[in-house]
Amino acid sequence: MKFLSELLFKHSVSGDETEIAHFIFDYVRKQSSIWKVPPEIYFGEEYHDCLMLKFGVPRTAVFAHLDTIGFMTRYENQLVAVGGPEVIEGTRLVGRDSKGDILCRIIGDEQACFHDLPRGIDRGTRLSFEQNIRVDEEYIQAAYLDNRLGIYNALKLCETLENGWVVFSTYEEHGGGSMPALLNFIQTNSPIRQALISDITWITEGVEHHKGVVISIRDKYIPRKKFINKLVSFAEKSGVPFQLEVEAYGGSDGREVQFSSHFIDWCFVGAAEDQVHTPDEKVSLFDLDCMLRMYSFLMEKL
Amino acid sequence: MKFLSELLFKHSVSGDETEIAHFIFDYVRKQSSIWKVPPEIYFGEEYHDCLMLKFGVPRTAVFAHLDTIGFMTRYENQLVAVGGPEVIEGTRLVGRDSKGDILCRIIGDEQACFHDLPRGIDRGTRLSFEQNIRVDEEYIQAAYLDNRLGIYNALKLCETLENGWVVFSTYEEHGGGSMPALLNFIQTNSPIRQALISDITWITEGVEHHKGVVISIRDKYIPRKKFINKLVSFAEKSGVPFQLEVEAYGGSDGREVQFSSHFIDWCFVGAAEDQVHTPDEKVSLFDLDCMLRMYSFLMEKL
Amino acid sequence: MKFLSELLFKHSVSGDETEIAHFIFDYVRKQSSIWKVPPEIYFGEEYHDCLMLKFGVPRTAVFAHLDTIGFMTRYENQLVAVGGPEVIEGTRLVGRDSKGDILCRIIGDEQACFHDLPRGIDRGTRLSFEQNIRVDEEYIQAAYLDNRLGIYNALKLCETLENGWVVFSTYEEHGGGSMPALLNFIQTNSPIRQALISDITWITEGVEHHKGVVISIRDKYIPRKKFINKLVSFAEKSGVPFQLEVEAYGGSDGREVQFSSHFIDWCFVGAAEDQVHTPDEKVSLFDLDCMLRMYSFLMEKL
Repeated sequence: MKFLSELLFKHSVSGDETEIAHFIFDYVRKQSSIWKVPPEIYFGEEYHDCLMLKFGVPRTAVFAHLDTIGFMTRYENQLVAVGGPEVIEGTRLVGRDSKGDILCRIIGDEQACFHDLPRGIDRGTRLSFEQNIRVDEEYIQAAYLDNRLGIYNALKLCETLENGWVVFSTYEEHGGGSMPALLNFIQTNSPIRQALISDITWITEGVEHHKGVVISIRDKYIPRKKFINKLVSFAEKSGVPFQLEVEAYGGSDGREVQFSSHFIDWCFVGAAEDQVHTPDEKVSLFDLDCMLRMYSFLMEKL
Repeated sequence: MKFLSELLFKHSVSGDETEIAHFIFDYVRKQSSIWKVPPEIYFGEEYHDCLMLKFGVPRTAVFAHLDTIGFMTRYENQLVAVGGPEVIEGTRLVGRDSKGDILCRIIGDEQACFHDLPRGIDRGTRLSFEQNIRVDEEYIQAAYLDNRLGIYNALKLCETLENGWVVFSTYEEHGGGSMPALLNFIQTNSPIRQALISDITWITEGVEHHKGVVISIRDKYIPRKKFINKLVSFAEKSGVPFQLEVEAYGGSDGREVQFSSHFIDWCFVGAAEDQVHTPDEKVSLFDLDCMLRMYSFLMEKL
Repeated sequence: MKFLSELLFKHSVSGDETEIAHFIFDYVRKQSSIWKVPPEIYFGEEYHDCLMLKFGVPRTAVFAHLDTIGFMTRYENQLVAVGGPEVIEGTRLVGRDSKGDILCRIIGDEQACFHDLPRGIDRGTRLSFEQNIRVDEEYIQAAYLDNRLGIYNALKLCETLENGWVVFSTYEEHGGGSMPALLNFIQTNSPIRQALISDITWITEGVEHHKGVVISIRDKYIPRKKFINKLVSFAEKSGVPFQLEVEAYGGSDGREVQFSSHFIDWCFVGAAEDQVHTPDEKVSLFDLDCMLRMYSFLMEKL
C-alpha cells in the first residue's frame, strides 16, 4: 500500500504526465530485477511521457493511463475543466505555479467555475483535487483511483508476467491522443492482436461493489462480440468473481484501439468505483483483488 | 432475389458480423469461378470479420458495410441502441441468448427503452428488427436495406469487375473502426487513390424515389470537389439516371477514408430509402438498378 | 501587401482548395530562387490540394490551412454551412456555377438559411463572403484573415528558413482530414518531433489587440506541458511581445497532430482576430508583425 499511496499523491493532470512517468520508470528499474521475466523498457522523450514494457513474446497488451482529470486556470480566476471533473463548490484544489504552491477552493458550478486564491494564478496552471486517502477493511477511497488503481494493477501484473506488453498511456481523460502512436510503435516492434484496458469503471444499477472485477461488454464503443465471448469463457474458468457491464456512454483507451489502423481486439477489464471524478472515488478492496487475479489469469490464457 | 432474401435474414448488429461475413465468404468462393476475373480473397481472424477482394490491378476501392443498427440488452430489461435505430413502441425484435431464441417487443421511447420478454435476456445480447421482406413492381421494403443493398450491389459488381478492390467493412453504424485497418492493408498490398461507398442514403425534399442512384456531394463530411466533378462528368456520360445529394448530416465509411493517413478521394454512390433505420426501409427497384449499372460504369472509367 | 491582397481574393471553401494551392505553388516556384535555402517542393494530385516544402533538415513543421469557411447550396435555395460561418442576414455571398458568376445575399438565420438569387444555383455550389479588404495604420480587416494571414506568415518565414517543413493543409475548417496523410508523408520522408500551427485565434477577455502574437496553452485540446514550457521560455528570450491563451473550445490542425500515429509535440502560435468567421475579421498589424518575428525566432531555436 505504501507504493500505491505514493502513486496517489502524484499530480498528473492530462498533458502533464512527466513526473508520474519518471516515478514509474524509477520503480520499474528497481523492481524489474526481481520480476519473473525482465522486460525491455521503452521510455524517453521520443515516446513523450509514455512508458512501454515488453515481456517475452507478446500476444496481448495491457494499457493503463497515467493522467487524471483536473482543472486549468484561464483568465480572471476562471477555471476550465481538463477531462470531466465533478465541479462541487468548496472542493479543495492544489497545484503549483511560478509564485509557489497553491491551495484554493472551487467557487461556482459547471457553467461558470472559479478559484478563490486572492493572489491570482498563472494562466494555464493545472490544479487537481487535494488528495485524501482513506482505507478500511472493505474500501479504498481517494481522488484519482481512476486510474491509479489501473496503474497499480498493471505493475502488480508485471511481477509474474511472461509474455505481453504493459503500456502506460497519457491524455486518456481529455480525448486521448497518445494511443495511436503507442499502437504504431507496438505493431512495428512486436505486434499484438489483443488489448486489455486496465482502468476503473462506474458503479451503476447493474454493477455493484464486492461483486468482482468488471468485464465491459460495451461503453460508448463496442468491442467485437467474438473476442468478448472468448474472454468471458476464460473468465468463467478463472474462478475469479466478475460482473458484466453494458453501458451507452463513457470511453477508455479502448476507443483508440477500435479506431486504430490495426486489427486489434480490445476489452475493458477493471474494478468499479462510485463518486466518479470527485475527490472521494471509492473502490471495493475485494473488487481490486479480483482485478489483479483476473489480469494474471487472462494474460496467461489469452 | 433469393440471395438478397437470404442476406436480409442474417443478423449482424455492429460488432457481431461473424455470421454474415462467413455467409458472404462462402458465396464468393462458390461464385467467383464464374466471374470475369477471379479475385484474390483476404478473409480470416487477422482481418476480424471483414472481407477484401482484389480484382486485377485496382485503382479504386468499393466499400460496403456488413453491419446493421439494432439494440443491446442492459440491466432490468433496458435496451441500449447500437447505431441509431428508430425506437417505435411495439416494434418486434429478435435475437438469441444462452436460454434460446428471443422474440419480444419494444416498450418506451428513445429516452427510456425496454423489452417485454418476461424471462429476461442475458446482458449484452444483441437484438434486431424482425425481418419482413415486401417486394412489388416498384419497391422493395424490408429491415436493413441499409446496407444489404449496398452489399448486394458490391457482389453484383464482382461478376464483371476487372480491376478494383471490393471490401466489406464492419462497425459502420456505430462509429466505425474497421476502415483504418482496412485502408492500411489496402495501401500496403495494392494501393488505390479513389473510393466509392456502396451504401444507402435518405429520401429528402431533394432526393426522390425513381429518380436514379444518388451521388452525394456531401453529408456531414465533404469529398474533394475535384473528384466529385470528375465522377459526375463520368456519370453524365453513363446514361444512367442519377441525382445529386447535398446534406448537412449523416455519415458513411467515407468519413474514415477522409480522415485516413492516405490521400484517397471518396464519394458516396447509392440508392435512397425512406423510413430509414426502421423495419420498413423502402427503396425503388429502379433506383437499385441504376445503382448496379452506375457502379459497373464508374469502376471501368475511374 | 499586394500578394496578401491577391491571396485574400481567392476562393477556397473547404474541399475546393485547388485554385489557391496552384496560386501558392506558382508563387513558391518564382520566389524560392531568392530564398535563403531553396526547398524541396511536394505538390500534385498524389497530395490532393496540399503543398509541402522541405527546407534543409527539418526538426519542426509549420502548418497553415488553405481553406476557408463558407456555404454550400442545397435544395430550394437552402444553404448548408461549410465549417462554422456566422450567419448574418443580408451578408453578400459570391461564387460560380454552371450558369456563371453569382452574387447574392443570405436570408434567414443559423436554423434555416437561404440565398436570394432568383435564378437558383446548382446543387452543391460553394459560396463565400464577398471580399472587402480594409487596412489602416493599426488594423487589417477582411474576410478570411483566418487563415490567409497564417498562409502569409508561413510564406514570409520561407524567405529565411534554413531547416523545417512548411506545409499547407486542406479541410481544416470542416473537421480536417488531410493532416493524417500529410503527417504520414512527413514522417516517412524526413520526420519531425515538433509542429507549430500558423493560424488565427480569437480576441477574448484575456487576449487583446496590440498585445502581441498568441501562444495557445490550450483550446479544446491540450498540447504537452513540457513542450509549451520549452516554447514559452524561447518566446521570452525572443523579445517579441506575446500573450498566453487558455480556451475550452476551438480547434486547429494541432488536433490532428495530437491524434496522429506519431509522437509529435504541437502548439498553436498566431495573431488573434475579432468578428471571427464574418466578412469583417480584424487583426492588429502589430500582432501580425509579432507573429512573423516569433516564427523566425522559434524555427531557428526549436
